Amino acid sequence: MSQPVEAFIDANRDRFLEELFALLRIPSISTLPEHVPDVAQAAGFVAEALKGAGVENVEIIPTARHPLVYGEWLHAPGKPTVLCYGHYDVQPPDPLEEWVTPPFEPAVRDGNIYARGSADDKGQMYMHIKAVEALRAASGTLPVNVKFLIEGEEEVGGASIAKFVGENAARLKADVGLVSDTSLYAEGIPTLCTGLRGLIYTEVDARGPAKDLHSGLYGGAAPNAVYALIELLAKAKSADGAIQVTGIYDDVTPPAPAEKSSWESLPFREEEFLKREVGASRLTGEPGYSVLERIWARPTLEVHGIAGGFTGAGAKTVIPAKATAKVSIRLVPRQDPDKVAGAFQEFVKANTPAGVQTEVRVLSASPAVLVDPGHPAIRTAAEAFQQVMGRPTVYIRSGGSVPIVGDFNRHLGIPTVMMGLGLPDDGLHSPNEKFRLENFYTGIKAIALFFERYGQTS
Amino acid sequence: MSQPVEAFIDANRDRFLEELFALLRIPSISTLPEHVPDVAQAAGFVAEALKGAGVENVEIIPTARHPLVYGEWLHAPGKPTVLCYGHYDVQPPDPLEEWVTPPFEPAVRDGNIYARGSADDKGQMYMHIKAVEALRAASGTLPVNVKFLIEGEEEVGGASIAKFVGENAARLKADVGLVSDTSLYAEGIPTLCTGLRGLIYTEVDARGPAKDLHSGLYGGAAPNAVYALIELLAKAKSADGAIQVTGIYDDVTPPAPAEKSSWESLPFREEEFLKREVGASRLTGEPGYSVLERIWARPTLEVHGIAGGFTGAGAKTVIPAKATAKVSIRLVPRQDPDKVAGAFQEFVKANTPAGVQTEVRVLSASPAVLVDPGHPAIRTAAEAFQQVMGRPTVYIRSGGSVPIVGDFNRHLGIPTVMMGLGLPDDGLHSPNEKFRLENFYTGIKAIALFFERYGQTS
Repeated sequence: MSQPVEAFIDANRDRFLEELFALLRIPSISTLPEHVPDVAQAAGFVAEALKGAGVENVEIIPTARHPLVYGEWLHAPGKPTVLCYGHYDVQPPDPLEEWVTPPFEPAVRDGNIYARGSADDKGQMYMHIKAVEALRAASGTLPVNVKFLIEGEEEVGGASIAKFVGENAARLKADVGLVSDTSLYAEGIPTLCTGLRGLIYTEVDARGPAKDLHSGLYGGAAPNAVYALIELLAKAKSADGAIQVTGIYDDVTPPAPAEKSSWESLPFREEEFLKREVGASRLTGEPGYSVLERIWARPTLEVHGIAGGFTGAGAKTVIPAKATAKVSIRLVPRQDPDKVAGAFQEFVKANTPAGVQTEVRVLSASPAVLVDPGHPAIRTAAEAFQQVMGRPTVYIRSGGSVPIVGDFNRHLGIPTVMMGLGLPDDGLHSPNEKFRLENFYTGIKAIALFFERYGQTS
Repeated sequence: MSQPVEAFIDANRDRFLEELFALLRIPSISTLPEHVPDVAQAAGFVAEALKGAGVENVEIIPTARHPLVYGEWLHAPGKPTVLCYGHYDVQPPDPLEEWVTPPFEPAVRDGNIYARGSADDKGQMYMHIKAVEALRAASGTLPVNVKFLIEGEEEVGGASIAKFVGENAARLKADVGLVSDTSLYAEGIPTLCTGLRGLIYTEVDARGPAKDLHSGLYGGAAPNAVYALIELLAKAKSADGAIQVTGIYDDVTPPAPAEKSSWESLPFREEEFLKREVGASRLTGEPGYSVLERIWARPTLEVHGIAGGFTGAGAKTVIPAKATAKVSIRLVPRQDPDKVAGAFQEFVKANTPAGVQTEVRVLSASPAVLVDPGHPAIRTAAEAFQQVMGRPTVYIRSGGSVPIVGDFNRHLGIPTVMMGLGLPDDGLHSPNEKFRLENFYTGIKAIALFFERYGQTS
């Protein structure tokens, strides 16, 4: 990028980091009701940061749940408009005891920022703001028009932003979206994500006896809600991980040959993935598919948590009356979330053991998305990324879902540049989540250069 | 019984109840470490109650966990000795929100005492003490010799009392045991229990990835500890409830024809059992066996609780690293607890899904027992029970386990009179546990008469 911009970024490294730390200290856990005030505080922090960067018409927009933060700078007539997205909410930090330093007391160790939200997504969202600040500070203007839309519900399904985007297409009109909520394929490899899995997230409840019963007096005759849920969920996947929900694979299409061969060319070491990232004795999943295919291009079903009966210390001999589980299905392109959610509800109904009632609540449903690497914005971003990092940009998919990318595509008709600076072992949603410190600055530079280059394309 | 004894019991109804309420107010939950002081307080209360009844050499005996309370009255030379057992510890009260009145604030409603431990076993244990008090108050002496051994670990496996009985056979020498920790077959039907199931209680842990992982980034390749435990436990029973642990049914023998036909003669209404007691849409269990056979004479496997992953409000997309379940197997006569525990551990090992480690911890293991209805003490108890309640005594089994009965049989070589005044719908181990108020007094009288009659048999 232009020398003054780079100089400004380098000169302000410490201040940028202090600001980010202040944001990371706010426990804006969107799924826990007791943290509603923290989420609101984080929204206020983001609004002030946008103003500080010279973004105009900054507004905190109330929603049915957590507020959106909007801002814009539109003084580059004839230049393209970039719609920058990020989220300031985070996942719960539990299990707390496994954090080396507290989740909301950011600390730098071995070149990493450790904190909940450091990579997902506060640290990455903040790169956009600092890139804009640097460009304006160095040149007094911006090479492109920018709009910011930052949410606080990404970790809980993003219902409010989806509704807002659907109802405000004109206000949000842009040429491309920019999201930094994904990862580099590996340290040092500039990476753009061109595909994301969708997600349906559900709660499954089971009810057996009217109340917990003594297993000595009723064991052998009374239905057990916990065991019924176990029997039911065990039928959801075959031993090798194939999902047993009827029709689940009907709309699944394999990746394009070119895409598949590019994945095969990536420096993927299964041993390392198993040992350094997963940390289990072996991997699992559908036979006949590579690991990358399984996590990028295949639907998967997971039970995220289960609870029921007595789980305190020691022994209690009850037949539990109630049990509940959190179950999600990841979706690949062309799968319809509502269709899959319906099929899962049918599956639960059909496989509920006798004597037990079950209910499925769908908490969220978002489709998978693909973007075209040939789009000028994607191409330009790839070139800028390559120049800043000094090697060719690779295109990958992510098994995760960023619902907003689908919303931008559906409601605004625009593709999204997914330029993420995370790393595969950042531990998103896990204890000791981290964000590589140097990638924070690299991201600010790459985004600034992308804006400069993209401004020159028209 | 003799008129003065009955008169004393009738004259002291209110005082007996107030004393019981004071005991029920002590939250002596033996499985929860934070209640250790309450358990100790309950032991002290029982010791004082024994002294108040005229029992001598009362002693609170420390153990590795919760204390035993011992006492004796041995001034009836040539008369038989009855070893009275009970327990002053209780199960945890959760789920708390389902109690109509608080579990440790005893309340009388529609002729029932509602409180945790009212029936299991404080209320019933207290009947023994009041029967002795009444006999001595009315006649200045006792028709039999009595020893009391009351524990505080019954709900957590009773390891200490088992050890104590094994090591103190001479001190505990008696002709028969007396336990009131079972139920009448139905309201108004004097009932002696002649068979109990045994129990092995275990915790099963599963470990998958080194830490919780993001299901988007790893779903399809990383093992899921919660799902692995679900897959494993689902294999433990067939759809119709038959246990799949190898050899589990090898030593199971059917009840004697006479026993079986007496069960068939009992006024059992499956519809009523289902609606009034179980409260589910239908019963479950092995086909080809009656409900009473299934709960009295067949081994059963239950999952009492399961926990793992994220179970808070809302959505968290983790692949859990850990999961745990509480699993027990009820045993019938001739099954060896250690053999069954070993077979279950083998089962878990053999069925642990790839990529996951499992561990089974056996928290307790006790065998089933049968007693001979022809024994003089049992016969005498049946006659006394019949006279007090005004109809013939029936003999049943219980699916629950009272480990001490096995210990008395094994170490002291004596049978036990299981004269319980509970009712099938007392809700042992459940919210709103109750004990029929009138049965409390009926029990005191039946036990007093049993002592008088039993003293005359020699």
